[in-house]
Amino acid sequence: MFDINKRPEVIQLSHGGGGKEMNKLIKSLFFSAFNNPILNNDEDAARLHLNGDIAFTTDSFTVSPLFFAGGDIGKLAIAGTVNDLAMMGAKPEYLSCSFIIEEGFEVGKLKKVVDSMVNEMDKSGAKIVCGDTKVVPKGCADGLLINTSGIGRIQFDGVSVTNIKLGDVIIVSRDIGRHGAAILMERESLALETTLTSDCATLWPTVKHLIEAKLEIHAMRDATRGGVSAVLNEWAMGSNVGITVKESAIPVCDEVKGMCELYGFEPFDLANEGTFLIALPEDEAIKALDIMHEFGCEATAAIIGRVSEDRPGKVILKTPWGSRRYLDLPQGELLPRIC
Amino acid sequence: MFDINKRPEVIQLSHGGGGKEMNKLIKSLFFSAFNNPILNNDEDAARLHLNGDIAFTTDSFTVSPLFFAGGDIGKLAIAGTVNDLAMMGAKPEYLSCSFIIEEGFEVGKLKKVVDSMVNEMDKSGAKIVCGDTKVVPKGCADGLLINTSGIGRIQFDGVSVTNIKLGDVIIVSRDIGRHGAAILMERESLALETTLTSDCATLWPTVKHLIEAKLEIHAMRDATRGGVSAVLNEWAMGSNVGITVKESAIPVCDEVKGMCELYGFEPFDLANEGTFLIALPEDEAIKALDIMHEFGCEATAAIIGRVSEDRPGKVILKTPWGSRRYLDLPQGELLPRIC
Repeated sequence: MFDINKRPEVIQLSHGGGGKEMNKLIKSLFFSAFNNPILNNDEDAARLHLNGDIAFTTDSFTVSPLFFAGGDIGKLAIAGTVNDLAMMGAKPEYLSCSFIIEEGFEVGKLKKVVDSMVNEMDKSGAKIVCGDTKVVPKGCADGLLINTSGIGRIQFDGVSVTNIKLGDVIIVSRDIGRHGAAILMERESLALETTLTSDCATLWPTVKHLIEAKLEIHAMRDATRGGVSAVLNEWAMGSNVGITVKESAIPVCDEVKGMCELYGFEPFDLANEGTFLIALPEDEAIKALDIMHEFGCEATAAIIGRVSEDRPGKVILKTPWGSRRYLDLPQGELLPRIC
Repeated sequence: MFDINKRPEVIQLSHGGGGKEMNKLIKSLFFSAFNNPILNNDEDAARLHLNGDIAFTTDSFTVSPLFFAGGDIGKLAIAGTVNDLAMMGAKPEYLSCSFIIEEGFEVGKLKKVVDSMVNEMDKSGAKIVCGDTKVVPKGCADGLLINTSGIGRIQFDGVSVTNIKLGDVIIVSRDIGRHGAAILMERESLALETTLTSDCATLWPTVKHLIEAKLEIHAMRDATRGGVSAVLNEWAMGSNVGITVKESAIPVCDEVKGMCELYGFEPFDLANEGTFLIALPEDEAIKALDIMHEFGCEATAAIIGRVSEDRPGKVILKTPWGSRRYLDLPQGELLPRIC
């Protein structure tokens, strides 16, 4: 029978009060999903044993909408933090997770987000070992915000923004701009006949194989906010080298091209959430590409540029028409709440 | 000359875009204040070297108002996370810091918060080594939200919620309920003639001396959300013991008593942000109190209860009139956005 009085269960202020209701929510929803002995200890902090070089990172996620083609805030919150660790050559191990939930948020949606986090952690083996839950009154936060911080063990300690060498080539791991374009599509409720999805993904499985192959990787970074433009500019400045990229070599799918034309964006400036760049010597580029194609990367992974003495600190874009222009750090508003 | 067009500088969406404006904000405000070699590396994650047993914790701060008598969200964000580490017997070392800022937030206020964080970190020697900045459009978050996660080196590995023994006594480090009462006072704009301030403080200096004295501490926890009631109940349940507290022994200042009468709260349920409980054998209690009084605690630190076989899992309150009642886990809404 259809019961019109049956409303979905929602989060109430008491779920953040530090008392009975909060304990129940934490135990029944978070502990049971993230289940592991360190978390279940239920102390003020997780107790870990670590020896050696460690990477430590943090990210807050404010993406809107919470659910989008190719992912949701939960998948993003795991992939985003795990990827920051992977980009340091670190195996993601321990995560913290802090929820800020708006009063009235549906418990069913929260469960969906939590399931998505559990599913994404399987890709790297990382575990949530400590957490925090805050509930704020209606109007004080938009639905759900998540912070994840992460600890990883460094397996390969050569990568750095300052380590790029003359003669290096730049590889991108797949076609760019998908996350930004997918969020824009959802937000504008575009009824495009498209299969465009975000690239949101955990990069550790690919990075792990690149490390195991003992390639001489000089720099590695995922192209999130600010897109490929931001990474290339930070590299050029950080290592005081010139980077020249060939526009026609940069993979961009037709859907992203279309969205860029519609809204006047450049694909280089759009955010990605599962796409990374590496800089390494030219004679290792083919081996790197083979590994990327074999372990998790799309066929679109490609060499897009080269490092030279020309215009140190600058990124130069060679257009398909033979002209050259500076590719600058993005500027202005772009898309808020992309991640 | 008075310039009516001179408006305070505010945060704009472009400050969160991942491009030029964000880089400028991060370098000029955060890096210059939190200045240390690990943070200044400017990689995707901080690179640390750790050996041994580590505590790892996270907390998001949503306190409203952002500035209150005795502290602000910055002081709270440092003290709160550092205290979670200290309560594990860990020396606070490395912090992450993630800001979610609402478009239009005054840069001057953000600077005040950041200065407050720097000042509070001096109390424990902890350092912010990685961070994240998000800007959300007006209406999507209330002013400023901060997440801090922390890593500490465990110096004393005996404390646990499951470790409380029969015959232990319970000590509270100062008079209770100040943080909750101070926030309530600000929020209700009470023009009380009062000097009531939050207890917000870093507890590591006191805990350090307790550890160095080699006391046999069985449990230690700061009484934040849910107040003293929540800690005592978690201990009674976690160690399956009965805890009896004497109401007349629990220190409560007159201002907090007054606020409780006015609003119908119990001081045991009010949040604290620089007040902790310890459980240890009776014959070490005086020594512990002496150390607490000498190193940072108020004169109000006192023995408030005892652990016995009576009613395992329950907390019993002996009232000044000789009656006994259960002190339960707090329930219901209490005060949202207390921390």
